[in-house]
Amino acid sequence: MRSLDIEALLATAHALADAAREAILPLFRTPLSIESKSDAFDPVTLADRRAEEAMRAILAAERPEDGILGEEGGAIGGSSGLTWVLDPIDGTRAFISGTPTWGVLIGLRDSEQVLHGIIDQPFTGERFEGGFGTAEWTHSSGTRPLAVRKTTNLEDATILTTFPEVGTDAEGAAFRKLSEKCRLTRYGLDCYAYALLAAGHVDLVVEAGLHPYDICAPIGVIEAAGGVVTSWQGEPALDGGAALAAATPELHRAAMDVLNG
Amino acid sequence: MRSLDIEALLATAHALADAAREAILPLFRTPLSIESKSDAFDPVTLADRRAEEAMRAILAAERPEDGILGEEGGAIGGSSGLTWVLDPIDGTRAFISGTPTWGVLIGLRDSEQVLHGIIDQPFTGERFEGGFGTAEWTHSSGTRPLAVRKTTNLEDATILTTFPEVGTDAEGAAFRKLSEKCRLTRYGLDCYAYALLAAGHVDLVVEAGLHPYDICAPIGVIEAAGGVVTSWQGEPALDGGAALAAATPELHRAAMDVLNG
Repeated sequence: MRSLDIEALLATAHALADAAREAILPLFRTPLSIESKSDAFDPVTLADRRAEEAMRAILAAERPEDGILGEEGGAIGGSSGLTWVLDPIDGTRAFISGTPTWGVLIGLRDSEQVLHGIIDQPFTGERFEGGFGTAEWTHSSGTRPLAVRKTTNLEDATILTTFPEVGTDAEGAAFRKLSEKCRLTRYGLDCYAYALLAAGHVDLVVEAGLHPYDICAPIGVIEAAGGVVTSWQGEPALDGGAALAAATPELHRAAMDVLNG
Repeated sequence: MRSLDIEALLATAHALADAAREAILPLFRTPLSIESKSDAFDPVTLADRRAEEAMRAILAAERPEDGILGEEGGAIGGSSGLTWVLDPIDGTRAFISGTPTWGVLIGLRDSEQVLHGIIDQPFTGERFEGGFGTAEWTHSSGTRPLAVRKTTNLEDATILTTFPEVGTDAEGAAFRKLSEKCRLTRYGLDCYAYALLAAGHVDLVVEAGLHPYDICAPIGVIEAAGGVVTSWQGEPALDGGAALAAATPELHRAAMDVLNG
Protein backbone atom coordinates (compact mmCIF):
# COMPACT_ATOMS: atom_id res chain seq x y z
CA MET A 1 0.00 0.00 0.00
CA ARG A 2 1.28 3.39 -0.89
CA SER A 3 1.02 6.15 1.68
CA LEU A 4 -0.65 9.41 0.71
CA ASP A 5 -0.08 12.81 2.22
CA ILE A 6 -3.76 13.62 2.53
CA GLU A 7 -3.25 17.10 3.95
CA ALA A 8 -1.07 18.04 1.00
CA LEU A 9 -3.52 16.56 -1.51
CA LEU A 10 -6.44 18.45 0.04
CA ALA A 11 -4.44 21.67 0.06
CA THR A 12 -3.72 21.20 -3.64
CA ALA A 13 -7.36 20.39 -4.40
CA HIS A 14 -8.50 23.55 -2.65
CA ALA A 15 -5.83 25.61 -4.37
CA LEU A 16 -7.10 24.33 -7.72
CA ALA A 17 -10.68 25.26 -6.88
CA ASP A 18 -9.64 28.68 -5.63
CA ALA A 19 -7.62 29.34 -8.78
CA ALA A 20 -10.51 28.28 -11.00
CA ARG A 21 -12.90 30.59 -9.16
CA GLU A 22 -10.54 33.48 -9.55
CA ALA A 23 -10.13 32.82 -13.27
CA ILE A 24 -13.79 32.26 -14.04
CA LEU A 25 -15.86 34.55 -11.88
CA PRO A 26 -14.81 37.87 -13.47
CA LEU A 27 -15.93 36.45 -16.82
CA PHE A 28 -19.31 35.10 -15.69
CA ARG A 29 -22.18 37.13 -17.15
CA THR A 30 -19.90 39.25 -19.30
CA PRO A 31 -20.11 39.19 -23.09
CA LEU A 32 -17.77 36.46 -24.31
CA SER A 33 -16.36 35.35 -27.63
CA ILE A 34 -17.67 31.87 -27.98
CA GLU A 35 -15.88 29.49 -30.30
CA SER A 36 -17.26 26.23 -31.53
CA LYS A 37 -15.22 23.05 -31.11
CA SER A 38 -17.24 21.19 -33.71
CA ASP A 39 -20.39 21.50 -35.76
CA ALA A 40 -22.46 20.73 -32.66
CA PHE A 41 -23.15 23.62 -30.33
CA ASP A 42 -20.33 23.17 -27.83
CA PRO A 43 -19.25 26.53 -26.51
CA VAL A 44 -15.80 26.96 -25.05
CA THR A 45 -15.29 30.14 -23.22
CA LEU A 46 -12.24 32.07 -22.35
CA ALA A 47 -13.07 31.33 -18.72
CA ASP A 48 -12.92 27.60 -19.39
CA ARG A 49 -9.42 27.81 -20.84
CA ARG A 50 -8.05 30.28 -18.29
CA ALA A 51 -9.30 28.18 -15.40
CA GLU A 52 -7.76 24.98 -16.72
CA GLU A 53 -4.46 26.72 -17.44
CA ALA A 54 -4.41 28.10 -13.90
CA MET A 55 -5.10 24.65 -12.45
CA ARG A 56 -2.47 22.98 -14.64
CA ALA A 57 0.12 25.54 -13.56
CA ILE A 58 -0.52 24.70 -9.90
CA LEU A 59 -0.25 20.97 -10.57
CA ALA A 60 2.96 21.43 -12.55
CA ALA A 61 4.49 23.23 -9.57
CA GLU A 62 3.07 21.21 -6.69
CA ARG A 63 2.35 17.74 -8.07
CA PRO A 64 4.69 17.16 -11.03
CA GLU A 65 4.52 13.36 -10.64
CA ASP A 66 0.71 13.18 -10.87
CA GLY A 67 -1.17 12.70 -14.10
CA ILE A 68 -3.78 15.17 -15.40
CA LEU A 69 -6.91 14.60 -17.44
CA GLY A 70 -8.59 17.89 -18.34
CA GLU A 71 -11.46 18.84 -20.61
CA GLU A 72 -9.53 21.50 -22.46
CA GLY A 73 -5.91 20.32 -22.35
CA GLY A 74 -6.29 16.57 -22.61
CA ALA A 75 -4.29 13.93 -20.74
CA ILE A 76 -0.78 14.04 -19.28
CA GLY A 77 0.60 10.83 -17.80
CA GLY A 78 2.21 10.69 -14.37
CA SER A 79 4.37 8.37 -12.31
CA SER A 80 2.62 8.61 -8.93
CA GLY A 81 -0.42 6.54 -9.81
CA LEU A 82 -2.65 9.55 -9.08
CA THR A 83 -4.54 11.54 -11.70
CA TRP A 84 -6.27 14.91 -11.33
CA VAL A 85 -9.42 14.98 -13.44
CA LEU A 86 -10.45 18.55 -14.26
CA ASP A 87 -13.50 20.11 -15.86
CA PRO A 88 -13.03 23.86 -15.42
CA ILE A 89 -16.63 24.67 -16.37
CA ASP A 90 -19.05 21.79 -16.36
CA GLY A 91 -22.21 23.22 -17.88
CA THR A 92 -20.89 25.74 -20.37
CA ARG A 93 -24.42 26.18 -21.74
CA ALA A 94 -25.63 27.10 -18.26
CA PHE A 95 -22.64 29.44 -17.94
CA ILE A 96 -23.38 31.35 -21.12
CA SER A 97 -27.04 31.59 -20.11
CA GLY A 98 -26.12 33.23 -16.81
CA THR A 99 -27.52 30.37 -14.68
CA PRO A 100 -25.64 29.65 -11.44
CA THR A 101 -25.82 25.88 -11.96
CA TRP A 102 -22.51 25.25 -13.75
CA GLY A 103 -19.52 24.24 -11.70
CA VAL A 104 -15.82 23.55 -11.49
CA LEU A 105 -15.10 19.82 -11.19
CA ILE A 106 -11.89 18.61 -9.60
CA GLY A 107 -11.47 14.88 -9.07
CA LEU A 108 -8.52 12.91 -7.75
CA ARG A 109 -8.34 9.25 -8.68
CA ASP A 110 -5.97 6.31 -8.75
CA SER A 111 -6.11 3.48 -11.25
CA GLU A 112 -9.20 2.00 -9.63
CA GLN A 113 -11.29 4.58 -7.83
CA VAL A 114 -12.00 8.20 -7.00
CA LEU A 115 -10.23 9.38 -3.85
CA HIS A 116 -11.63 12.90 -3.59
CA GLY A 117 -13.96 15.19 -5.49
CA ILE A 118 -14.88 18.88 -5.48
CA ILE A 119 -17.92 20.47 -7.13
CA ASP A 120 -17.38 24.21 -6.82
CA GLN A 121 -19.93 26.91 -7.75
CA PRO A 122 -18.04 30.20 -7.81
CA PHE A 123 -21.04 32.55 -8.17
CA THR A 124 -23.05 31.16 -5.24
CA GLY A 125 -19.79 30.61 -3.39
CA GLU A 126 -20.57 26.98 -2.64
CA ARG A 127 -18.03 24.17 -2.45
CA PHE A 128 -19.29 20.59 -2.22
CA GLU A 129 -16.49 18.12 -1.51
CA GLY A 130 -15.97 14.60 -0.36
CA GLY A 131 -13.29 11.97 0.12
CA PHE A 132 -10.57 10.91 2.57
CA GLY A 133 -13.26 10.33 5.19
CA THR A 134 -15.13 13.63 5.00
CA ALA A 135 -18.03 15.11 3.03
CA GLU A 136 -18.93 18.77 3.41
CA TRP A 137 -20.52 21.87 1.97
CA THR A 138 -18.78 25.20 2.46
CA HIS A 139 -20.41 28.59 1.92
CA SER A 140 -20.16 32.10 3.31
CA SER A 141 -22.95 31.09 5.73
CA GLY A 142 -20.89 28.26 7.19
CA THR A 143 -19.92 24.62 6.71
CA ARG A 144 -22.32 21.69 6.87
CA PRO A 145 -21.85 17.95 6.46
CA LEU A 146 -23.06 16.45 3.21
CA ALA A 147 -25.33 13.41 3.54
CA VAL A 148 -27.74 11.84 1.09
CA ARG A 149 -31.45 11.35 1.85
CA LYS A 150 -32.82 7.95 2.87
CA THR A 151 -35.27 7.68 -0.03
CA THR A 152 -35.72 4.07 -1.16
CA ASN A 153 -38.83 4.21 -3.42
CA LEU A 154 -39.10 5.78 -6.85
CA GLU A 155 -42.52 7.26 -6.03
CA ASP A 156 -40.89 9.38 -3.31
CA ALA A 157 -37.93 10.42 -5.44
CA THR A 158 -36.98 13.69 -7.09
CA ILE A 159 -35.02 12.94 -10.28
CA LEU A 160 -32.76 15.35 -12.13
CA THR A 161 -31.15 15.43 -15.53
CA THR A 162 -29.79 18.20 -17.71
CA PHE A 163 -31.38 17.78 -21.14
CA PRO A 164 -34.89 16.30 -21.51
CA GLU A 165 -33.75 14.23 -24.50
CA VAL A 166 -31.04 12.45 -22.37
CA GLY A 167 -28.59 10.91 -24.85
CA THR A 168 -29.71 8.58 -27.62
CA ASP A 169 -33.35 7.90 -28.49
CA ALA A 170 -33.23 4.63 -26.55
CA GLU A 171 -31.60 6.29 -23.55
CA GLY A 172 -34.15 9.09 -23.67
CA ALA A 173 -37.03 6.60 -23.73
CA ALA A 174 -35.57 4.72 -20.76
CA PHE A 175 -35.14 7.96 -18.84
CA ARG A 176 -38.74 8.99 -19.46
CA LYS A 177 -40.00 5.61 -18.29
CA LEU A 178 -38.07 6.14 -15.07
CA SER A 179 -39.08 9.79 -14.73
CA GLU A 180 -42.76 8.87 -14.92
CA LYS A 181 -42.38 6.66 -11.86
CA CYS A 182 -40.77 9.43 -9.81
CA ARG A 183 -42.47 12.11 -7.78
CA LEU A 184 -40.79 15.10 -9.39
CA THR A 185 -38.50 15.62 -12.38
CA ARG A 186 -36.32 18.70 -12.85
CA TYR A 187 -34.05 19.66 -15.72
CA GLY A 188 -31.15 21.90 -16.58
CA LEU A 189 -28.78 21.58 -13.63
CA ASP A 190 -25.56 20.08 -14.98
CA CYS A 191 -23.10 19.18 -12.20
CA TYR A 192 -25.13 21.09 -9.64
CA ALA A 193 -27.54 18.15 -9.75
CA TYR A 194 -24.89 15.84 -8.26
CA ALA A 195 -24.14 18.41 -5.58
CA LEU A 196 -27.83 18.59 -4.62
CA LEU A 197 -27.96 14.80 -4.41
CA ALA A 198 -24.93 14.70 -2.11
CA ALA A 199 -26.50 17.42 0.04
CA GLY A 200 -29.72 15.44 0.50
CA HIS A 201 -32.08 17.65 -1.51
CA VAL A 202 -32.83 15.27 -4.40
CA ASP A 203 -32.65 11.52 -4.88
CA LEU A 204 -31.62 10.54 -8.40
CA VAL A 205 -29.44 12.02 -11.13
CA VAL A 206 -29.50 10.31 -14.51
CA GLU A 207 -27.29 11.46 -17.36
CA ALA A 208 -25.96 10.01 -20.61
CA GLY A 209 -23.13 10.82 -22.98
CA LEU A 210 -20.74 11.90 -20.22
CA HIS A 211 -16.99 12.30 -20.53
CA PRO A 212 -14.72 10.93 -17.78
CA TYR A 213 -14.05 14.48 -16.53
CA ASP A 214 -17.81 15.08 -16.13
CA ILE A 215 -18.28 12.32 -13.59
CA CYS A 216 -15.04 11.79 -11.62
CA ALA A 217 -15.52 14.60 -9.09
CA PRO A 218 -19.27 13.91 -8.66
CA ILE A 219 -18.46 10.27 -7.86
CA GLY A 220 -16.10 11.40 -5.12
CA VAL A 221 -18.60 13.82 -3.59
CA ILE A 222 -21.63 11.53 -3.77
CA GLU A 223 -19.88 8.40 -2.52
CA ALA A 224 -18.46 10.36 0.42
CA ALA A 225 -21.99 11.59 1.23
CA GLY A 226 -23.28 7.99 1.29
CA GLY A 227 -24.73 7.72 -2.21
CA VAL A 228 -24.16 5.36 -5.11
CA VAL A 229 -22.88 6.20 -8.62
CA THR A 230 -22.54 3.64 -11.41
CA SER A 231 -23.24 3.27 -15.09
CA TRP A 232 -26.85 2.45 -16.01
CA GLN A 233 -25.74 -1.19 -15.96
CA GLY A 234 -24.28 -1.03 -12.47
CA GLU A 235 -20.65 -0.93 -13.61
CA PRO A 236 -18.10 1.68 -12.51
CA ALA A 237 -18.95 5.07 -14.02
CA LEU A 238 -15.42 6.46 -14.04
CA ASP A 239 -15.08 6.26 -17.80
CA GLY A 240 -18.17 8.40 -18.45
CA GLY A 241 -21.05 7.39 -20.69
CA ALA A 242 -24.45 6.88 -19.06
CA ALA A 243 -24.38 7.53 -15.31
CA LEU A 244 -26.91 6.81 -12.58
CA ALA A 245 -26.46 8.43 -9.17
CA ALA A 246 -28.79 7.49 -6.33
CA ALA A 247 -29.26 8.38 -2.68
CA THR A 248 -29.53 4.75 -1.50
CA PRO A 249 -28.69 1.26 -2.82
CA GLU A 250 -32.41 0.39 -2.81
CA LEU A 251 -33.30 3.38 -4.95
CA HIS A 252 -30.33 2.68 -7.22
CA ARG A 253 -31.54 -0.87 -7.79
CA ALA A 254 -35.12 0.28 -8.48
CA ALA A 255 -33.90 2.88 -10.99
CA MET A 256 -31.59 0.39 -12.74
CA ASP A 257 -34.47 -2.07 -13.07
CA VAL A 258 -36.54 0.54 -14.93
CA LEU A 259 -33.68 1.89 -17.07
CA ASN A 260 -32.81 -1.62 -18.25
CA GLY A 261 -36.35 -3.09 -18.15
CA MET B 1 -53.81 62.01 -13.18
CA ARG B 2 -53.13 60.77 -9.74
CA SER B 3 -49.78 61.55 -8.20
CA LEU B 4 -47.73 58.69 -6.76
CA ASP B 5 -45.18 58.93 -3.99
CA ILE B 6 -42.61 56.85 -5.80
CA GLU B 7 -40.06 56.94 -3.00
CA ALA B 8 -42.61 55.55 -0.56
CA LEU B 9 -43.76 52.88 -2.98
CA LEU B 10 -40.17 51.76 -3.62
CA ALA B 11 -39.46 51.68 0.11
CA THR B 12 -42.50 49.46 0.63
CA ALA B 13 -41.52 47.19 -2.27
CA HIS B 14 -38.03 46.75 -0.81
CA ALA B 15 -39.44 46.15 2.67
CA LEU B 16 -41.64 43.39 1.24
CA ALA B 17 -38.70 41.74 -0.48
CA ASP B 18 -36.56 42.01 2.65
CA ALA B 19 -39.31 40.49 4.80
CA ALA B 20 -39.81 37.63 2.36
CA ARG B 21 -36.08 36.87 2.35
CA GLU B 22 -36.00 36.81 6.12
CA ALA B 23 -39.00 34.49 6.28
CA ILE B 24 -37.86 32.10 3.57
CA LEU B 25 -34.11 31.76 3.73
CA PRO B 26 -33.89 29.92 7.08
CA LEU B 27 -36.25 27.29 5.65
CA PHE B 28 -34.48 26.79 2.32
CA ARG B 29 -32.77 23.39 2.16
CA THR B 30 -34.21 22.24 5.46
CA PRO B 31 -36.60 19.28 5.70
CA LEU B 32 -40.12 20.62 5.27
CA SER B 33 -43.63 19.32 5.75
CA ILE B 34 -45.06 19.60 2.30
CA GLU B 35 -48.79 19.75 1.87
CA SER B 36 -50.63 19.25 -1.37
CA LYS B 37 -53.15 21.86 -2.50
CA SER B 38 -54.81 19.44 -4.88
CA ASP B 39 -54.35 16.04 -6.45
CA ALA B 40 -51.68 17.47 -8.71
CA PHE B 41 -48.19 17.81 -7.26
CA ASP B 42 -48.28 21.40 -6.04
CA PRO B 43 -46.17 21.80 -2.94
CA VAL B 44 -46.82 24.62 -0.57
CA THR B 45 -44.18 25.11 1.99
CA LEU B 46 -44.21 26.75 5.33
CA ALA B 47 -41.82 29.28 3.86
CA ASP B 48 -44.36 30.22 1.22
CA ARG B 49 -47.03 30.98 3.78
CA ARG B 50 -44.76 32.75 6.25
CA ALA B 51 -43.37 35.01 3.55
CA GLU B 52 -46.78 36.02 2.25
CA GLU B 53 -48.04 36.65 5.78
CA ALA B 54 -45.01 38.85 6.48
CA MET B 55 -45.60 40.82 3.28
CA ARG B 56 -49.34 41.23 3.94
CA ALA B 57 -48.60 42.52 7.45
CA ILE B 58 -46.34 45.23 5.99
CA LEU B 59 -48.96 46.22 3.43
CA ALA B 60 -51.70 46.33 6.08
CA ALA B 61 -49.59 48.74 8.09
CA GLU B 62 -48.06 50.88 5.35
CA ARG B 63 -50.48 50.70 2.41
CA PRO B 64 -53.95 49.96 3.79
CA GLU B 65 -55.67 51.54 0.78
CA ASP B 66 -53.92 49.36 -1.80
CA GLY B 67 -55.29 46.05 -3.03
CA ILE B 68 -53.39 42.76 -2.72
CA LEU B 69 -53.37 39.70 -4.95
CA GLY B 70 -51.26 36.91 -3.47
CA GLU B 71 -50.70 33.27 -4.34
CA GLU B 72 -51.48 31.97 -0.88
CA GLY B 73 -53.97 34.46 0.55
CA GLY B 74 -56.01 35.43 -2.50
CA ALA B 75 -57.27 38.91 -3.41
CA ILE B 76 -58.11 41.89 -1.23
CA GLY B 77 -59.66 44.91 -2.91
CA GLY B 78 -58.35 48.43 -2.34
CA SER B 79 -59.43 52.00 -2.90
CA SER B 80 -56.17 53.52 -4.19
CA GLY B 81 -56.29 51.94 -7.65
CA LEU B 82 -52.98 50.18 -6.90
CA THR B 83 -52.59 46.45 -6.34
CA TRP B 84 -49.58 44.54 -4.96
CA VAL B 85 -49.24 41.21 -6.72
CA LEU B 86 -47.27 38.74 -4.61
CA ASP B 87 -45.84 35.30 -5.21
CA PRO B 88 -43.77 34.51 -2.12
CA ILE B 89 -42.03 31.54 -3.74
CA ASP B 90 -42.32 31.26 -7.49
CA GLY B 91 -40.86 27.85 -8.28
CA THR B 92 -41.80 25.79 -5.24
CA ARG B 93 -40.59 22.66 -7.05
CA ALA B 94 -37.17 24.30 -7.51
CA PHE B 95 -37.27 25.33 -3.85
CA ILE B 96 -37.90 21.83 -2.55
CA SER B 97 -35.17 20.49 -4.86
CA GLY B 98 -32.61 22.90 -3.38
CA THR B 99 -32.06 24.77 -6.66
CA PRO B 100 -31.34 28.50 -6.34
CA THR B 101 -33.64 29.38 -9.24
CA TRP B 102 -36.90 30.06 -7.38
CA GLY B 103 -37.71 33.63 -6.42
CA VAL B 104 -39.92 36.07 -4.59
CA LEU B 105 -42.13 38.03 -6.97
CA ILE B 106 -43.46 41.44 -5.99
CA GLY B 107 -45.37 43.41 -8.59
CA LEU B 108 -47.16 46.74 -8.30
CA ARG B 109 -49.87 47.47 -10.85
CA ASP B 110 -52.77 49.79 -11.51
CA SER B 111 -55.86 48.85 -13.48
CA GLU B 112 -53.97 48.92 -16.78
CA GLN B 113 -50.30 48.18 -16.35
CA VAL B 114 -47.39 47.11 -14.18
CA LEU B 115 -45.65 50.02 -12.50
CA HIS B 116 -42.81 48.19 -10.77
CA GLY B 117 -41.56 44.64 -10.34
CA ILE B 118 -39.05 42.81 -8.16
CA ILE B 119 -37.64 39.32 -8.74
CA ASP B 120 -35.68 38.50 -5.61
CA GLN B 121 -33.47 35.42 -5.12
CA PRO B 122 -32.69 35.20 -1.40
CA PHE B 123 -30.05 32.45 -1.53
CA THR B 124 -27.87 34.05 -4.19
CA GLY B 125 -28.69 37.44 -2.69
CA GLU B 126 -29.77 38.88 -6.04
CA ARG B 127 -32.53 41.43 -6.52
CA PHE B 128 -33.68 42.24 -10.06
CA GLU B 129 -36.05 45.19 -10.20
CA GLY B 130 -37.52 47.63 -12.65
CA GLY B 131 -40.06 50.41 -12.93
CA PHE B 132 -40.49 54.13 -12.25
CA GLY B 133 -37.69 54.84 -14.69
CA THR B 134 -35.02 52.49 -13.40
CA ALA B 135 -33.94 48.88 -13.94
CA GLU B 136 -31.22 47.34 -11.82
CA TRP B 137 -29.61 44.26 -10.33
CA THR B 138 -28.39 44.37 -6.76
CA HIS B 139 -26.03 41.83 -5.20
CA SER B 140 -23.33 41.74 -2.55
CA SER B 141 -20.85 42.40 -5.37
CA GLY B 142 -22.57 45.68 -6.31
CA THR B 143 -25.36 47.15 -8.39
CA ARG B 144 -25.58 47.03 -12.17
CA PRO B 145 -28.14 48.33 -14.64
CA LEU B 146 -30.43 45.76 -16.22
CA ALA B 147 -30.67 45.86 -20.00
CA VAL B 148 -31.85 43.26 -22.48
CA ARG B 149 -29.67 41.98 -25.32
CA LYS B 150 -30.11 43.21 -28.89
CA THR B 151 -30.86 39.80 -30.37
CA THR B 152 -33.31 40.02 -33.27
CA ASN B 153 -33.07 36.56 -34.91
CA LEU B 154 -34.29 33.25 -33.56
CA GLU B 155 -31.15 31.47 -34.74
CA ASP B 156 -29.08 33.64 -32.38
CA ALA B 157 -31.45 33.28 -29.45
CA THR B 158 -31.25 31.37 -26.19
CA ILE B 159 -34.76 30.31 -25.15
CA LEU B 160 -35.84 29.28 -21.66
CA THR B 161 -38.86 27.57 -20.20
CA THR B 162 -39.48 25.66 -16.97
CA PHE B 163 -41.10 22.36 -17.97
CA PRO B 164 -40.28 20.69 -21.32
CA GLU B 165 -43.95 19.81 -21.83
CA VAL B 166 -44.98 23.54 -21.64
CA GLY B 167 -48.71 23.58 -20.94
CA THR B 168 -51.19 21.73 -23.14
CA ASP B 169 -50.21 19.33 -25.92
CA ALA B 170 -50.78 22.05 -28.51
CA GLU B 171 -48.80 24.60 -26.52
CA GLY B 172 -46.00 22.08 -26.05
CA ALA B 173 -45.88 21.37 -29.77
CA ALA B 174 -45.76 25.09 -30.57
CA PHE B 175 -42.96 25.59 -28.05
CA ARG B 176 -40.89 22.77 -29.55
CA LYS B 177 -41.32 24.21 -33.03
CA LEU B 178 -39.96 27.49 -31.73
CA SER B 179 -37.22 25.88 -29.66
CA GLU B 180 -35.89 24.05 -32.72
CA LYS B 181 -35.31 27.37 -34.48
CA CYS B 182 -33.33 28.79 -31.57
CA ARG B 183 -29.65 28.42 -30.86
CA LEU B 184 -29.95 27.05 -27.35
CA THR B 185 -32.83 25.85 -25.14
CA ARG B 186 -32.60 25.58 -21.36
CA TYR B 187 -35.14 24.29 -18.85
CA GLY B 188 -36.03 24.43 -15.18
CA LEU B 189 -35.51 28.07 -14.23
CA ASP B 190 -38.93 29.36 -13.12
CA CYS B 191 -38.91 33.13 -12.52
CA TYR B 192 -35.12 33.26 -12.67
CA ALA B 193 -35.53 32.92 -16.43
CA TYR B 194 -37.22 36.33 -16.62
CA ALA B 195 -34.47 37.82 -14.48
CA LEU B 196 -31.81 36.46 -16.84
CA LEU B 197 -33.68 37.93 -19.81
CA ALA B 198 -33.84 41.35 -18.17
CA ALA B 199 -30.13 41.12 -17.36
CA GLY B 200 -29.21 40.42 -20.98
CA HIS B 201 -28.05 36.81 -20.63
CA VAL B 202 -30.84 35.10 -22.59
CA ASP B 203 -33.29 36.20 -25.27
CA LEU B 204 -36.65 34.46 -24.96
CA VAL B 205 -38.76 33.06 -22.14
CA VAL B 206 -41.86 31.09 -23.10
CA GLU B 207 -44.26 29.74 -20.50
CA ALA B 208 -47.85 28.55 -20.39
CA GLY B 209 -50.47 28.03 -17.69
CA LEU B 210 -49.33 31.01 -15.63
CA HIS B 211 -51.30 32.68 -12.86
CA PRO B 212 -51.47 36.50 -12.73
CA TYR B 213 -49.07 36.53 -9.75
CA ASP B 214 -46.48 34.56 -11.78
CA ILE B 215 -46.10 37.22 -14.42
CA CYS B 216 -46.82 40.67 -12.94
CA ALA B 217 -43.38 41.28 -11.41
CA PRO B 218 -41.51 39.81 -14.40
CA ILE B 219 -43.42 42.17 -16.71
CA GLY B 220 -42.26 45.12 -14.61
CA VAL B 221 -38.61 44.03 -14.58
CA ILE B 222 -38.39 43.06 -18.25
CA GLU B 223 -40.22 46.10 -19.63
CA ALA B 224 -38.00 48.37 -17.53
CA ALA B 225 -34.94 46.61 -18.98
CA GLY B 226 -36.18 47.25 -22.52
CA GLY B 227 -37.83 43.92 -23.32
CA VAL B 228 -41.30 42.91 -24.41
CA VAL B 229 -43.79 40.65 -22.57
CA THR B 230 -47.18 39.67 -23.98
CA SER B 231 -49.41 36.64 -24.31
CA TRP B 232 -48.54 34.27 -27.16
CA GLN B 233 -51.09 36.24 -29.21
CA GLY B 234 -49.50 39.60 -28.51
CA GLU B 235 -52.11 40.70 -25.97
CA PRO B 236 -51.32 41.99 -22.47
CA ALA B 237 -49.99 39.15 -20.30
CA LEU B 238 -51.10 40.56 -16.96
CA ASP B 239 -53.85 37.98 -16.48
CA GLY B 240 -51.44 35.04 -16.80
CA GLY B 241 -51.93 32.14 -19.19
CA ALA B 242 -49.35 31.68 -21.95
CA ALA B 243 -46.61 34.30 -21.82
CA LEU B 244 -43.89 35.25 -24.29
CA ALA B 245 -41.03 37.46 -23.14
CA ALA B 246 -38.47 38.67 -25.66
CA ALA B 247 -35.37 40.84 -25.68
CA THR B 248 -36.45 42.89 -28.71
CA PRO B 249 -39.66 43.63 -30.65
CA GLU B 250 -38.16 41.92 -33.73
CA LEU B 251 -37.44 38.73 -31.81
CA HIS B 252 -40.86 38.91 -30.18
CA ARG B 253 -42.52 39.12 -33.59
CA ALA B 254 -40.47 36.20 -34.95
CA ALA B 255 -41.32 34.03 -31.93
CA MET B 256 -45.03 34.89 -32.14
CA ASP B 257 -45.07 33.93 -35.80
CA VAL B 258 -43.75 30.46 -34.98
CA LEU B 259 -45.90 29.93 -31.87
CA ASN B 260 -49.06 30.78 -33.85
CA GLY B 261 -47.95 29.47 -37.23
